[in-house]
Amino acid sequence: MSTPFLIPAHEGIKQVEQLMRSQAGNDHHPDLRAALEHLLMAGGKRIRPTIVFLVGNVVKAPHEKLVTLGAAVEMLHTATLVHDDLIDGSLLRRGIPTLNARWSPAATVLTGDFLFGRAAKLAAETDYLPLMKLFSETLTVIVNGELTQMFSAKGIIERKNYYNRIYAKTASLFEMSSLAATMVGTEDEIIRTSMKTYGYEVGMAFQIMDDVLDFTGEQSTIGKPVGSDLLNGLVTLPAIYFAESHPDNPEVKLLAEGGWGNTAKMEILVKSIQSSNAIRNAMDEAVEHVDKALEAIEPFKQSPEYESLAGVARYIIDRNS
Amino acid sequence: MSTPFLIPAHEGIKQVEQLMRSQAGNDHHPDLRAALEHLLMAGGKRIRPTIVFLVGNVVKAPHEKLVTLGAAVEMLHTATLVHDDLIDGSLLRRGIPTLNARWSPAATVLTGDFLFGRAAKLAAETDYLPLMKLFSETLTVIVNGELTQMFSAKGIIERKNYYNRIYAKTASLFEMSSLAATMVGTEDEIIRTSMKTYGYEVGMAFQIMDDVLDFTGEQSTIGKPVGSDLLNGLVTLPAIYFAESHPDNPEVKLLAEGGWGNTAKMEILVKSIQSSNAIRNAMDEAVEHVDKALEAIEPFKQSPEYESLAGVARYIIDRNS
Repeated sequence: MSTPFLIPAHEGIKQVEQLMRSQAGNDHHPDLRAALEHLLMAGGKRIRPTIVFLVGNVVKAPHEKLVTLGAAVEMLHTATLVHDDLIDGSLLRRGIPTLNARWSPAATVLTGDFLFGRAAKLAAETDYLPLMKLFSETLTVIVNGELTQMFSAKGIIERKNYYNRIYAKTASLFEMSSLAATMVGTEDEIIRTSMKTYGYEVGMAFQIMDDVLDFTGEQSTIGKPVGSDLLNGLVTLPAIYFAESHPDNPEVKLLAEGGWGNTAKMEILVKSIQSSNAIRNAMDEAVEHVDKALEAIEPFKQSPEYESLAGVARYIIDRNS
Repeated sequence: MSTPFLIPAHEGIKQVEQLMRSQAGNDHHPDLRAALEHLLMAGGKRIRPTIVFLVGNVVKAPHEKLVTLGAAVEMLHTATLVHDDLIDGSLLRRGIPTLNARWSPAATVLTGDFLFGRAAKLAAETDYLPLMKLFSETLTVIVNGELTQMFSAKGIIERKNYYNRIYAKTASLFEMSSLAATMVGTEDEIIRTSMKTYGYEVGMAFQIMDDVLDFTGEQSTIGKPVGSDLLNGLVTLPAIYFAESHPDNPEVKLLAEGGWGNTAKMEILVKSIQSSNAIRNAMDEAVEHVDKALEAIEPFKQSPEYESLAGVARYIIDRNS
C-alpha cells in the first residue's frame, strides 16, 4: 500500500540516518565501522523516528532536537535487536544476515554495547534531563522484559503475562518515542499524556499484528518459519484466543503442560489456530488499540500532522490484512 | 597493608552499596534480582566510588550527588565486567564464580544490559547534563577499546597501542570518576582539569600494576595463570620492555610473528621477563604516573582530603610491591 502519510517525516528520517551513520566515527575500529554501517543502513521501517517527527511537529518541538531524539531511539532499538539476534541465534533479519551470523558472539555483544553508548550520548545531546531518565527507564523495562521472557514466559497461556511482555518488548519504546518528542516541545501535562497514550496504543497494536503475522504470513515475507513463536514455547494472542475457546483441544493441553518441544503436535496446533476465529479475534483487539490511539490524538484534529498520525496507526493494521 | 586513607569514604561507600542493591528492585524477575545481588555484593575494592567521594569532598560537592554518581560508576564498571567475563569465557572473578559460569550466555548478556540501563538511570539522577554526556562518551571509549583489543591488539609489541588500550580499558573510567565528582562541585575549569589528570594518572598506574601482577603474582591471588595475558596474545608493558631490550630473543621474535599460541615457548618468555629488568622498568613507569597524579593534586594540599587522595595513588603501587 502507499504511505502518503509518511511524507511529512521523510526529510527528518534522512537526517536521522545521516546522524546515525556519523556515530560510527572515524576514530573507531574499521571492522566496527563496517558493522555499524551494515546495521544502521539495513533499512527497516524507521517507524519509531517517524512517530518522533509527526508527534514532535504537532507540539512544534525544535526540528534538530527531533533529529537527535529520532537517532537515539533508532539506535537504542538497533542495540536491542543486535543482542536479541545473538540470544535467539538468529542468522537473518529482514532477509539480511545478522551481525551474529557474520561475527563472533563476543564482537556482537560489544557492538550492541557500543550502540547503547551512542544512543545514550545522543539522548544526552537533546539537553533535556527528564528525557535521559525516561530513556534509561525504558531500557530497563525492555531488558527486564527480555529476561522475564527467557526465564518464565515459556508455555504460559495467560493474557496478563502476554500484555506485560509485549509492552516491555515493543510498546514501551513506541510510548517513549511519542512521549519524548512531546516533552521537547511542551510542558503541558495533558498533551504529554495524550501523546504517551498514542505511542503506547500504536505499539501494542504493532506487536499484536506482528504476532498475528507469525501465523498468517508467508515464510518468505516474515523471514522465519510460520508459527515459530509457538515452536519456541512463546504463547501469543492468537494462541491465547484459541486456547480460551478450545480448552479441551489435545494440543492446547500439551502446550500448557510444557510440550511445545513436540514439533509435530505444535504444527497441528498452528494449523488449528490458522483456521479458527482466533486470528480474527486477535486482529480485532489490535484494531481496538488503534481506535484508542486515534481517540488519544482527537484533540489535535486541526493539526496538519493529524492525518499522518492517524495514517501511521491505521497502517499497523492495513499492512498485514 | 592498612588503608587509613580510605576512612573518609567509608560511610559513602556503604550508601553506594545500599543504592546499588536497591536498583535490583522488587518489580524485576527474581533470578535477575539474585544475580544482581550476587554481582553487586561480591566485593571488589570500590576504588572508583572511593575516588568519587575523596575528589568530590575536596570541591565540596553535595554528598547525595556523590552517592548517586558513585553507584552509577560502579554499576557501569560491573556491567562491563559481566560482558567481559562472557567474552573471555572467564568462570571466576575475585575467586567467585562469574555470572557466566552459572547462567546461560543469553542471560548474562541481558544482565549486563540491565546494569547499563541502571547505570544510565543513576547518572541521569545526578541531574547534571554534562555528566550524562561524559558518562555515555566514556562507555563508548571503553567498548571501542575492547573491540580494538579483540580485533587488532594480538601480538602487537607497540607502546602507543598499549597505552591506548589501557586508557580505554581502565584509565578512562578512573578519569571520568574523578572529573565527574569535580563537575558536580565546581565549574572552575582549572580544578576540573587537575582532578581529571589525577584520575587519568591513577588509572594508568592501576592498569600497569595490574599488568605487572600478571607476571609477578601468585596464581592463587590473581585468580588466573601467571602470564595469562601473553598466552592470550596480549602484549603488556613488561613484555614491551623486555622485547625492546632483547630484540633478538627467539621467543620475542616468535611473539611478533603471531606465535603466542605456542604455549611452551610463551612460558619460556614469561620466565625470561620475570627474571629481567622489564618488571622493574614497568613498575617505575607506574610510579611516574603516580608522581604525576600527586603533582595534579598539589594545589589541594591544604584540603583535609589531600592525604587520602595521595594515599589512594600510592596504594596502587604499594599493594603489589
